[in-house]
Amino acid sequence: MEPVSKALKYARDHRDRFLADLDAFLRIPSVSDDPLHEADVKRAAEWVSGKLRGLNLGRVEVFPTEGHPIVYAETAPTGSHGPSVLVYGHCDVQSPMPIGDWDTEPFVPVTRGDNLYARGASDMKGQILACVSALEAVMEGGACPPTVKFLIEGEEEIGSPHLGDFINSHRDMLACEFCLNPDAGMLGPDCPTIVWGLRGMVSCVLRVKGPAKDLHSGGFGGVVHNPVHALCALIGGLHDAEGRVALPGYYEKVRALAAEERAELAGLPLDELSFLKESGVRELWGEPGYTALERTAVRPALDVVQIRGGGPKSAIPAEAEALVTMRLVPDQDPAEARDQLVSYLEREAPRTVSWELEECQGFPPSLVGRSTRGVEALARALEAVWGRRPAFHRGGGSIPVVGTLQEVLGVDSVLTGFSLPGDSVHGPNEKLHLPTWERGVAALVRFFCDLAGQAGRSSS
Amino acid sequence: MEPVSKALKYARDHRDRFLADLDAFLRIPSVSDDPLHEADVKRAAEWVSGKLRGLNLGRVEVFPTEGHPIVYAETAPTGSHGPSVLVYGHCDVQSPMPIGDWDTEPFVPVTRGDNLYARGASDMKGQILACVSALEAVMEGGACPPTVKFLIEGEEEIGSPHLGDFINSHRDMLACEFCLNPDAGMLGPDCPTIVWGLRGMVSCVLRVKGPAKDLHSGGFGGVVHNPVHALCALIGGLHDAEGRVALPGYYEKVRALAAEERAELAGLPLDELSFLKESGVRELWGEPGYTALERTAVRPALDVVQIRGGGPKSAIPAEAEALVTMRLVPDQDPAEARDQLVSYLEREAPRTVSWELEECQGFPPSLVGRSTRGVEALARALEAVWGRRPAFHRGGGSIPVVGTLQEVLGVDSVLTGFSLPGDSVHGPNEKLHLPTWERGVAALVRFFCDLAGQAGRSSS
Repeated sequence: MEPVSKALKYARDHRDRFLADLDAFLRIPSVSDDPLHEADVKRAAEWVSGKLRGLNLGRVEVFPTEGHPIVYAETAPTGSHGPSVLVYGHCDVQSPMPIGDWDTEPFVPVTRGDNLYARGASDMKGQILACVSALEAVMEGGACPPTVKFLIEGEEEIGSPHLGDFINSHRDMLACEFCLNPDAGMLGPDCPTIVWGLRGMVSCVLRVKGPAKDLHSGGFGGVVHNPVHALCALIGGLHDAEGRVALPGYYEKVRALAAEERAELAGLPLDELSFLKESGVRELWGEPGYTALERTAVRPALDVVQIRGGGPKSAIPAEAEALVTMRLVPDQDPAEARDQLVSYLEREAPRTVSWELEECQGFPPSLVGRSTRGVEALARALEAVWGRRPAFHRGGGSIPVVGTLQEVLGVDSVLTGFSLPGDSVHGPNEKLHLPTWERGVAALVRFFCDLAGQAGRSSS
Repeated sequence: MEPVSKALKYARDHRDRFLADLDAFLRIPSVSDDPLHEADVKRAAEWVSGKLRGLNLGRVEVFPTEGHPIVYAETAPTGSHGPSVLVYGHCDVQSPMPIGDWDTEPFVPVTRGDNLYARGASDMKGQILACVSALEAVMEGGACPPTVKFLIEGEEEIGSPHLGDFINSHRDMLACEFCLNPDAGMLGPDCPTIVWGLRGMVSCVLRVKGPAKDLHSGGFGGVVHNPVHALCALIGGLHDAEGRVALPGYYEKVRALAAEERAELAGLPLDELSFLKESGVRELWGEPGYTALERTAVRPALDVVQIRGGGPKSAIPAEAEALVTMRLVPDQDPAEARDQLVSYLEREAPRTVSWELEECQGFPPSLVGRSTRGVEALARALEAVWGRRPAFHRGGGSIPVVGTLQEVLGVDSVLTGFSLPGDSVHGPNEKLHLPTWERGVAALVRFFCDLAGQAGRSSS
């Protein structure tokens, strides 16, 4: 039997063990934005490092940071002359709040039909274990692995505040030909996907301040400008009536959509109906002149993801605030987008309140090469498993590490993953489609063998 | 010594005891909107009933309701042929949240300078004890009291849900010539005040619903209408650029301001500067063509007192909601105002979201007689203490029991009180100005004596 076939057989034979591992990993409530779960994020890092140690790699280490720890691992020298790959992952998860929206406990994985339900199943503990399991299958199945490094952080869901510094100060250790980032998902169960572009992100807290303290609305209603009203008017004006972002100059640097890419996007299996179905709205919304897929892939967006002000008592609150986020596309710049928001506020905010824009964070959109050795190897592996060429797509989400790795290490990321549009990533009842995940493991087995020069010819 | 003088002396001699009583009353955290404080509201009712029992009245009773209890008390037959007065009060308080805004603990009264700081000091435990202390001074000082009844509820700050039924089913017990309601405050320490009008109130929860669940803002930003944006646009449109309420027909039934009342209001010591100082804003706001005082007294207002939606994660939330309140003036009607809000929403809400208006509550504005026996007796008492005629004012707040008593018992309320504009009622660091409160006790002593036919001639 060829090495690839042996590795694939190992993966099939150990399916239940791999899923038991995933179950254990998902039970750790590694919510990075909640100080109460600090120890759990650490536990998740230790769990995954223990898992990697079990593979008899050359090095496995947990690096503390000023926040949550970072796991690094690398294969022992293998004799492979193929390209080295850095597998990126994050072992932290989004908060499952509000818990009441879940049908089952977010940290007690439950399998119903083909799906495994748990926070992090899809984003991205399942993706990490697909890579780890595939490497185990390659090594234990008797094939020679390529040079693989793992970089697994615990702060992706809070904006990776310590990852940039870590990468900067560990350039030699992390050196590789490319990064495999399986956090980008796929467009449908029958559509293996390679993502070659991601939206950037800017987020800021906009706070509108009115009176010095909460005021009785009987004594002051009609006399003092309520900061909730002023904030709402400002947010209401961030889009025009048709759904365009109304910040001055917002679209100026957005690259025009080329006819070829428009055609490519039109061929992807994400039509308006699939967006309607997945979101549950009766009508879509957004910038005219672009399809829904185009609006997420190649056009920028602006979303207030949180607003709060006042309380149940009859008082005009002293302040109200909103968390404003912008998804940016090439060639928008985070600092410029922030400045456009500031210009808008300077122009539109009434004199009867004051405002401040705080906690601004951002990173640029990114594009990666479509014909690199890594992309080509992955495309072959996906095609061997799914029987079709992968779709090439630009994702609407944001993965800041992609830009950081380009900037610091000079390497592109190969973006893929085995999560599906309906997986409720960041929402309640997050799930992982297990048949897709198993195909993903098989594809990663083929991918690792291919990189090590053992592509094989057998079908999966 | 005349009976009035003896009663006034008793009040002066027992000042410290009265304040010790108030301290004990204020330490009970009777927050009616918080189920965790249910026992405390009951404790406050029992405390005040115990206090009344100590006066050797004819009857003191605590009536349970389906919510918080109601205290009733009445003097024993006194032989007085004067008018009987029903003293209304509420022993519940607004939530002190957010606690962090307070300089000292809200339920640990602290005296600094002339002020006593505590939640409820001004609204309205201090006002209740001014009445109880004054009655004690009259009775213990040897004067004959008028027929006094007390009606003290525990649900005013949550809209008095059980008071109407209680009044309805205890008409005979509560029968009186008029009600004394000391919850209306005064315009300044040198300006004793009788309020003859109050704004009505409508409150509704407006909920805007978007996607079936929270959606990752990367995958859906620009494709699905964010309910926060839709809600904000709707709220932003509730006022025009100059500060008028933009609901269709909102001002149609508002009574025009007569020249005489405009002149009377202009004579009150509440100018723009005092509103600026009290609120801490740099510029006032509101309907053009009316002074700030006019806007709170004789013009309606609309305030969103709470807004919330989404969270810190990068998701388009499934829904967002706002607590919309309207302060109404004669001859606006709560049901019509609600309908005007519905019409506005039907006209303005986009098809890309749905909305619902829930938990609507309301009561009409009220006007009371300005030349009744009760008002005249109180005016004499206030003038004797302050050395000037009281100001006649229409208050911007809302006291629903005033309308209920008119409707069910056919009696007007005499609205006064000894809280000041700067007392931070409903806000942090609520306070009571003690010299004003002591004058209030003296005025109430005179008022009770006057009602019993013992007006007296001595100065305070």
